[in-house]
Amino acid sequence: MADRMQGMSGNIIREILKLTKKPDIISFAGGLPSPDSFPVEELRQIAGDIFAGDPGFLQYGTTEGLPELRESLAAWVAEVGIDAHSDQVLILTGSQQGIDLACKALLNPGDTVIVERPTYLAAIQIFKMYGANIVAVPGDERGMDLEALAEAAAAHRAKMVYIISNFQNPSGITWSLEKRQQLAALADELGFIIVEDDPYGRLRYSGSSEPAVSGLNRLKRSLYLGSFSKVVSPGLRIGYAVGPAPLIRAMVIGKQGTDVHSSNLSQRIVLELMRRGILARHIPKICAQYGMKRDVMLSALAEHLPAQVSWTKPAGGLFIWVTLPQKYSVTKLLERAVEEKVAFIPGIPFFLDGSGDNCMRLNFSNASPEQIRTGIARIAKVIAEADK
Amino acid sequence: MADRMQGMSGNIIREILKLTKKPDIISFAGGLPSPDSFPVEELRQIAGDIFAGDPGFLQYGTTEGLPELRESLAAWVAEVGIDAHSDQVLILTGSQQGIDLACKALLNPGDTVIVERPTYLAAIQIFKMYGANIVAVPGDERGMDLEALAEAAAAHRAKMVYIISNFQNPSGITWSLEKRQQLAALADELGFIIVEDDPYGRLRYSGSSEPAVSGLNRLKRSLYLGSFSKVVSPGLRIGYAVGPAPLIRAMVIGKQGTDVHSSNLSQRIVLELMRRGILARHIPKICAQYGMKRDVMLSALAEHLPAQVSWTKPAGGLFIWVTLPQKYSVTKLLERAVEEKVAFIPGIPFFLDGSGDNCMRLNFSNASPEQIRTGIARIAKVIAEADK
Repeated sequence: MADRMQGMSGNIIREILKLTKKPDIISFAGGLPSPDSFPVEELRQIAGDIFAGDPGFLQYGTTEGLPELRESLAAWVAEVGIDAHSDQVLILTGSQQGIDLACKALLNPGDTVIVERPTYLAAIQIFKMYGANIVAVPGDERGMDLEALAEAAAAHRAKMVYIISNFQNPSGITWSLEKRQQLAALADELGFIIVEDDPYGRLRYSGSSEPAVSGLNRLKRSLYLGSFSKVVSPGLRIGYAVGPAPLIRAMVIGKQGTDVHSSNLSQRIVLELMRRGILARHIPKICAQYGMKRDVMLSALAEHLPAQVSWTKPAGGLFIWVTLPQKYSVTKLLERAVEEKVAFIPGIPFFLDGSGDNCMRLNFSNASPEQIRTGIARIAKVIAEADK
Repeated sequence: MADRMQGMSGNIIREILKLTKKPDIISFAGGLPSPDSFPVEELRQIAGDIFAGDPGFLQYGTTEGLPELRESLAAWVAEVGIDAHSDQVLILTGSQQGIDLACKALLNPGDTVIVERPTYLAAIQIFKMYGANIVAVPGDERGMDLEALAEAAAAHRAKMVYIISNFQNPSGITWSLEKRQQLAALADELGFIIVEDDPYGRLRYSGSSEPAVSGLNRLKRSLYLGSFSKVVSPGLRIGYAVGPAPLIRAMVIGKQGTDVHSSNLSQRIVLELMRRGILARHIPKICAQYGMKRDVMLSALAEHLPAQVSWTKPAGGLFIWVTLPQKYSVTKLLERAVEEKVAFIPGIPFFLDGSGDNCMRLNFSNASPEQIRTGIARIAKVIAEADK
């Protein structure tokens, strides 16, 4: 499944990843939910009920989205500390559309967008498409280096700061409360907009949740993006944006020109999952499953990988970020790994400057525990061989 | 239902049209299919079968779209004279997304896009959003004035010519075979890309179909956009683009950044409608219904409107275009019309230069025959009063 990796079009990684579609390859490459995580029976029941009811969903809807779903989402984001009216909610076809529409609404070519280093590769592609000047600011396991951010934001008069606040893609790190508060204050002080992408926030397996940066900023200069792709199903294509009313209105105009509105059928399905309490019951089940898989992968990494290799221990999400000594090229390792029937994403596309080739992103949600153990052993073998 | 009229944000028409959501208003304003035109029972059956089968559709899909649906569509467009491989088909969330992605792939700010005069108002909004220089070329009931087009295309080195070849929105006109052939040749000669939007082409109620301009051009410098919004359901959000492989690839990259892929569930539903022959049986039913409504509206116009008013007699589609003498302001008439509980779209937003206020677009697909007769009588009354 090519999924969200396709942004790296034309490069060698894409070609290699085509091979990962073969059924006998263990792939840690995608960002895919586990195929047995979907609430199929509940979805079947809901779809039947929707088609047996008012067929109004087959007609055009409003660009903003189904009013009842917007209301449900205003309540849903209150759980992460965001106080929003349903008018401030826009239904999207995924949180990624929110990045695109925010750019459409806010950016002119040459405007500066600050991102985490490393960051989500498809976000980089979007910012490039809008002609942005992209500046990557490094950080640690608690979030971005905010002194460096303040300096870069002031120097470039940054328009936007894009972050993934929970279980970041690719690094797996989560912003600390202190850094969240500081970033929320910096936005007001320096005049940039925070685009807080949070597709994984509900998938926490240990520790306790921190409030959304956008909530700490009281949605004054912040946009919160959420998704049902990781907690229900990516195939339905439903996400949402919550932000200041003028920004949401500008994004609505952008969305009108793009796709008029998100699928009413998918919106109705998600609404019913929320109304019937299925979503609230479903998420802990996924968390139990993915948390176990994360632990299996962390154990396998500790068991098999050599001492000079390090990796993040994410409290949730889908990804572990592995750092090898600088002498390794993970892109080269990938070629050998695919021969050994295991795949992952090399670090380069998550950076802007060609660095990161000593890093790899491992997804732990899609493979089975047995596959995880086997796959990590294979990666260890490939690394060991590269040492010779 | 605000639907695709929302591009006129902020202006008086939008405010007036909000009133048309009231249930006792007869609205000829939208471009909505008839609510009783949806194949609800067939869709219910299909949805049940999809959820009872392989749940793979709940996972991420490829940006290009479901392979089986791309194949079905390659065969589907052969019926309008387009010879395409399934690799040249991109599944969209509606034909409108094709306009947006074509702009993303092809336009730089300042590039010239030539459109029909009048043309689809949301297309104007999209071209503006990409900073295009938009040039409107008038025509007659057989299509654009191609001498004027050739002159404008050469003078501005036009990148793109946007047309609606069948039952144009708003005018209802259909391009003649001769004009289609000439335009197809001009694209090769002058180097522009034809974006042929054809959401209504299958809704023909009289006369015989002409081949798509994109087929006549052999997809060399042309992009064909189709939709299931008018023949199945707009709420599912499925359309498609067919074009030269390099342009389709560029649009795929644009779509990756926007919404990753279209809803798999909606794609599967459309695929099954095609596979089971339901679509082929359904379209003649809609055509019978809408053709009857068109005739009712044409009769009512002939019965009620004064002699100095003229209108188009479309062979299909959803719209009749009414032209009043220059002394009338249809925007002003609309205010009075809404008081009389009837609504339509004034001509201005379909033009670039503020003209067209003596014109109105009437939709005949959404209202019942009885409502059509009553509504046209009310419009006649409002026009008569304005004469006093």
